[in-house]
Formats: sequence, structure tokens, C-alpha cells
Amino acid sequence: MKQTVSFTPFDLSVLVNSKIGALRDEKLEDINFAEAWLNQIFNQSLEQASHKKKSCEVCSSQPDCELHHIAGRKHDFRTLTACKQCHTELTESQKTWDARWYKYNQPENIRLAFFLLGLHDILLLKTKKTANSIYEELAKSFRQEIATLLTRDPRGQT
Amino acid sequence: MKQTVSFTPFDLSVLVNSKIGALRDEKLEDINFAEAWLNQIFNQSLEQASHKKKSCEVCSSQPDCELHHIAGRKHDFRTLTACKQCHTELTESQKTWDARWYKYNQPENIRLAFFLLGLHDILLLKTKKTANSIYEELAKSFRQEIATLLTRDPRGQT
Ligand SMILES: [Zn+2]
Ligand SMILES: [Zn+2]
Ligand SMILES: [Zn+2]
Ligand SMILES: [Zn+2]
Repeated sequence: MKQTVSFTPFDLSVLVNSKIGALRDEKLEDINFAEAWLNQIFNQSLEQASHKKKSCEVCSSQPDCELHHIAGRKHDFRTLTACKQCHTELTESQKTWDARWYKYNQPENIRLAFFLLGLHDILLLKTKKTANSIYEELAKSFRQEIATLLTRDPRGQT
Repeated sequence: MKQTVSFTPFDLSVLVNSKIGALRDEKLEDINFAEAWLNQIFNQSLEQASHKKKSCEVCSSQPDCELHHIAGRKHDFRTLTACKQCHTELTESQKTWDARWYKYNQPENIRLAFFLLGLHDILLLKTKKTANSIYEELAKSFRQEIATLLTRDPRGQT
């Protein structure tokens, strides 16, 4: 059956500007989500850190979730909920970290470096799992600070 | 020579939030730039369309710039300044367009589709040349509209 369509005046400029507006909204929403998520990670209490969330904070899958210590259990109590597969990837990447990661009682700058390294790896994995480049861009912005923290002399000498 | 450094209290949350703020600013700046650039393309006069800019609007290189007709010379007067290399890539990609591209006097919906296709290819190339994914994301958001325009019956029948 044929159908008569009356075209409304079409203006490509209106279309393109509405797509730009949608892209702006989407980017802001992504960044606001990342901001709220990371602040929730920073601000977790000891009590909250011991409870798993309902789904993986990296890839959103639900079965077989585990608690992952972001900086490593020796260095900080804060955790992330990760599925078995994401947890394995995060654990594997920790093998490439500074060797002091294996030793207890590290000075504050080293423990902060490991926490930031943990966030860095989580963000890279999240870009891999979600195909959203925002997380990777944020991860890359941490690298200079990680290097600075790892090479600071904790006794206050350079 | 050893130097004494007094550490200021260090708060990762402050660092990470400032990186998030910088990322937000950067994305907004990128999107605002794309918005201004595309609107300048839409709003060019016949007179402006006949003058080359000083550098390639895709990759910013300066030598050997040429005028490229975004929709194809047959379909719309609006131009982009592109270096020889970028112009070649844009011309090559036009070979994959709908075959009506080779014919004069196309109805408005087809000419609009070619203009939008031209912008689409320019944006994809700009992501390739600048490694900024914003342009590619915008290009992808045009695809459904291109398909709609190319398959509309210009006599008002579907
Ligand atoms: Zn997961
Ligand atoms: Zn773990
Ligand atoms: Zn160029
Ligand atoms: Zn051309």
C-alpha cells in the first residue's frame, strides 16, 4: 500500500547542531558518572569496603562477583566489586607493578602510588569492556603523578 | 646536591577530581570547536566558498591547500579547504557513494544526503588525522539520516 508523505522543511544545520548537542550531553553524562563512581570509591568506609555490590563495577556483569583491593590488600582497605574475569585481569596487571607492592608497611607515597595504579588499571579495563574512551583518557592523566609518587624519597630528600 | 623537600598533605581525591575537571573542560572545548567549525561551513556565502583558507581544515597542514566541494560540485557550492593529501582521501571516498552522485539536477533530499555524506567523511578523516574520537562519534550519528535521505521518494511517496 502506498502512503503519501508530506515533507517538513529540512535543514541540515538543525540536524547537525542537534547531534552536536546530543554528543555534548552524552560526554557530560559519561564524565559525571565517572566522577560520582570514583568519589564513591574514595569515600567508602571500612564497613562498605567489606560488602560486594550486585554487579561488576567494570563490565556490569552479575554472576561470580568478588571483592578486589584496589591498591592491594597490604596497602589500602578500599575495594572494587569485580566479576571473576575482570578480577583476573586486574590481578594479572598487578604483577607488572613496582616490586615494593609485595612488601608490607610501605610509606604513604608508595601506598598512594599503588592506589592510583589500581585506579589506572581499572579505568583502562573499563574502556576495554565498555568501548568508552573517557576512562582510558582519565587513566593516562594519572601517569605522571604515579611516577612522581614512586620516585619520591619518603624521608623528605630528593 | 641534596635538597630538602617538605611534603604538602597529599589527597588523591583532590588529584583525581582535578583530572576529571580537566577532562570535562577538554571535551567541552573540543565539542565547542567542532560546533563553531561546522556552523561556519553551513553558513558560508558563495563568495566565501570561493576562497581558500590558510591551512587544511582537516589536518592543519599549510602547503598545497585546495578547495574541496563538500557535497560534490554538482550538488552544492559549499567548500572546505583541504591539503593535497586530505583532498585525495576525500575524493577517493566519494567513489563509494550512491551512483546518483555522478548526475546533475538531483532532488533536494539527494543533494542533502551528499552534503551530509561529505561532512561524514571529513569528520572520519579528522579523527584519523587528529586522533580525537569526537569527530568520528559525530560522523556516526549522521548515518541513519543519510540512509533516510537516500531512500526517500522525492515525489512524496514511500
Ligand atoms: Zn567484569
Ligand atoms: Zn583483587
Ligand atoms: Zn590535510
Ligand atoms: Zn574535492
